[in-house]
Amino acid sequence: MATSKDKKHLVIIGGGFAGLNLAKHIDKAQWSVTIIDRNNYHSFPPLFYQVASSGLEPASISFPFRREMLSRKCRGCEFHLGEADRIDTARREVHTQFETLSYDALVLAAGSTNNFFGIPDLEKKVYTLKSTPEAIRCRNEILDRLERASLCPDRDKRRRLLTFAVVGGGPAGVEIAGALGEFKRYTLKREYPSLDLDDMRVVLIEGTGKLLGTMSEKSSEDALRGLEQLMVDVQLNKKMDSYDDGVLRFADGSTIETDTVVWTAGVRAVSFEMEGTDVQPGHAGRWEVDAYNSIVGIDDVYAIGDIAIMSTVKYPKGHPQVAQVALQQGANLAENLNNPHREARAFEYNDKGSMATIGRNRAVADIGKMHLSGKAAWFAWLVVHLMTLLGMRNRAVVFINWMWSYFTFSAGLRILIRPEKYPLRKYWKE
Amino acid sequence: MATSKDKKHLVIIGGGFAGLNLAKHIDKAQWSVTIIDRNNYHSFPPLFYQVASSGLEPASISFPFRREMLSRKCRGCEFHLGEADRIDTARREVHTQFETLSYDALVLAAGSTNNFFGIPDLEKKVYTLKSTPEAIRCRNEILDRLERASLCPDRDKRRRLLTFAVVGGGPAGVEIAGALGEFKRYTLKREYPSLDLDDMRVVLIEGTGKLLGTMSEKSSEDALRGLEQLMVDVQLNKKMDSYDDGVLRFADGSTIETDTVVWTAGVRAVSFEMEGTDVQPGHAGRWEVDAYNSIVGIDDVYAIGDIAIMSTVKYPKGHPQVAQVALQQGANLAENLNNPHREARAFEYNDKGSMATIGRNRAVADIGKMHLSGKAAWFAWLVVHLMTLLGMRNRAVVFINWMWSYFTFSAGLRILIRPEKYPLRKYWKE
Repeated sequence: MATSKDKKHLVIIGGGFAGLNLAKHIDKAQWSVTIIDRNNYHSFPPLFYQVASSGLEPASISFPFRREMLSRKCRGCEFHLGEADRIDTARREVHTQFETLSYDALVLAAGSTNNFFGIPDLEKKVYTLKSTPEAIRCRNEILDRLERASLCPDRDKRRRLLTFAVVGGGPAGVEIAGALGEFKRYTLKREYPSLDLDDMRVVLIEGTGKLLGTMSEKSSEDALRGLEQLMVDVQLNKKMDSYDDGVLRFADGSTIETDTVVWTAGVRAVSFEMEGTDVQPGHAGRWEVDAYNSIVGIDDVYAIGDIAIMSTVKYPKGHPQVAQVALQQGANLAENLNNPHREARAFEYNDKGSMATIGRNRAVADIGKMHLSGKAAWFAWLVVHLMTLLGMRNRAVVFINWMWSYFTFSAGLRILIRPEKYPLRKYWKE
Repeated sequence: MATSKDKKHLVIIGGGFAGLNLAKHIDKAQWSVTIIDRNNYHSFPPLFYQVASSGLEPASISFPFRREMLSRKCRGCEFHLGEADRIDTARREVHTQFETLSYDALVLAAGSTNNFFGIPDLEKKVYTLKSTPEAIRCRNEILDRLERASLCPDRDKRRRLLTFAVVGGGPAGVEIAGALGEFKRYTLKREYPSLDLDDMRVVLIEGTGKLLGTMSEKSSEDALRGLEQLMVDVQLNKKMDSYDDGVLRFADGSTIETDTVVWTAGVRAVSFEMEGTDVQPGHAGRWEVDAYNSIVGIDDVYAIGDIAIMSTVKYPKGHPQVAQVALQQGANLAENLNNPHREARAFEYNDKGSMATIGRNRAVADIGKMHLSGKAAWFAWLVVHLMTLLGMRNRAVVFINWMWSYFTFSAGLRILIRPEKYPLRKYWKE
């Protein structure tokens, strides 16, 4: 421990794609590294929707930080559980509920959470997909609706229970709507023989005229067609006004009656209490950074990934909030911190393409100018996600689950596990 | 559906080992069958302790009823989610929070839950292992203590956080204590470098003079030795008095300071509100049944598995509350219900033996007069449990997890997932 005194202390808030990749690339001979995270595991947000749709177990897409700290690239990094409540940039301290840490350099990599755009109480009425517990809750609520509907003799109530509205046509919205459509098409009649196909309705609502806004026109059209084949009712150019008493209201006056709204319509950066500086976060809570991911106006504080916004010629409104940007910013910042005497390298995003899956054998991918869809894109999607997952065990388990679902036409993990503190009786009674 | 009118309606409360096996063996040409369960999945209690010790994910030992209802043996059975609140034996009705079902024959197979022997508020202070959510909660609390301890500069507090007391020396107690001991011996120093081996203490407390009371003397001794090798402090003949303000008190005046008590010391049968009869359940809420699992004094109502107690010459105090008895009673009752015109066959328990695992390469097994221990027993334990699990997917995933743990000397799923409704900040602050 004597040598660690000579090292500078790097504190990273958040062990997601950005923070963890920074930790992997930082030179541990120069820096002693502490990762703070509110969870004791690294998670894999691109597959949260599969937890929500009963396709994967939460643990399969999570990896304990303490195991990752034993890996070759992370050896020497420390993991501290906690929520960074408050940062004091004058004293160079980070406070969590458990401790106060001093830093020489601080990196904000806490990512993003849901944005409800100030719609009152919306947070309490909808289900979201921005963390593992949220995805588990979404899974439980979907399964709850199916079970309750199967016992409900009143057709109107039953239809209402089986109306699933997904708000937001980005990748998460398209993917969860696709999974629900697939359930309707392939599984409903078999596993819920008392229900009619017509009772179930999946609606995907998008405010703009295009699904998968950041992807190509072709991908967006293919996604729309794919969802329609899965009996998803896609409604474009539809602006949501309110959601009260089980009624979704839109700007055009139309309504949808539903007990289950999955909200994927917006994100904002995770926020902190900041002391010792006047610098404030910008649009949607994102911290404005220069080309080196340094927050302008606060010494030795950086922001990477979803929480940062960097305006460049190619991306004047900032980069997309995706895993690739986070990973690359983490690596680039490590490179710059490792070489303080060399001229810092400006971040340049190498867009490797983007993809979204709609259902079995159905996906879309844009890779450079190339566009893939159908089976080829779906297969590419599988391989890319399997390879990006942390840990051999997780890869093996995810692979088995995917094969199982593929051959049985059914998600294998339709398990409604309520937190122990919510006894079924209390929670369900209406 | 026309033919189902001619069939008699069999309602089974509980889809555990007993209820599900009855459903598999019942003649669907004579009976229309409804299984009511509070969960939408069949679970596998012998492995709950592995969920609690981060060895397995809950879904790997759960199987959705609706999928099982598609299997060859269960085809035609219906699954209804719900808790059987109230039974009216005069009207022959079962009430759940969702519906009222009429029956021609009713089988109570709802199993057992924790028994706190009237110790006030004990339920709220200890962690238990009698259901999947309880096991998940136990896992979360154990991981919470480890993380908190690793951030705690005060040695006394740290030691208190790392004292894990397991009360009850039956199979569940031995198994969870073994898993905790294994963690201490093989994983603690590696994954929690800031903690000392001496800080952690695992205590197993048993009221009688013998671990694994129902097993052979030899098994009991081997289990004791195995646990001691895993640095578990086994205390026999120790009667617990109370647990208040983090202090476990015993009849002999001794105390243990701990924030974490895992309670495996007793079970009682799940209870119902019963109307239309004066018959009451007996010792620990178990329903007294005759040799055919019929509840004496209530027409066409049966009890099987943990919830029943059948006094026989060989088992004057009833059979042990284990999976084998439940499975066999389910099959025997099905046989009798299928053949109403034949003389009913009295239940006879075919004891195939019992086993308990202590840790890697350490287990004990009694098979007839034979006793196995060490590697052989451990391997037998693995094979038996793997074969008994429902579903190929589950077997494959469990197998991968076990292999992974075996070769890495570590449980792979050390993931602390709080229910979404308990934000970390609120839950943890002291």
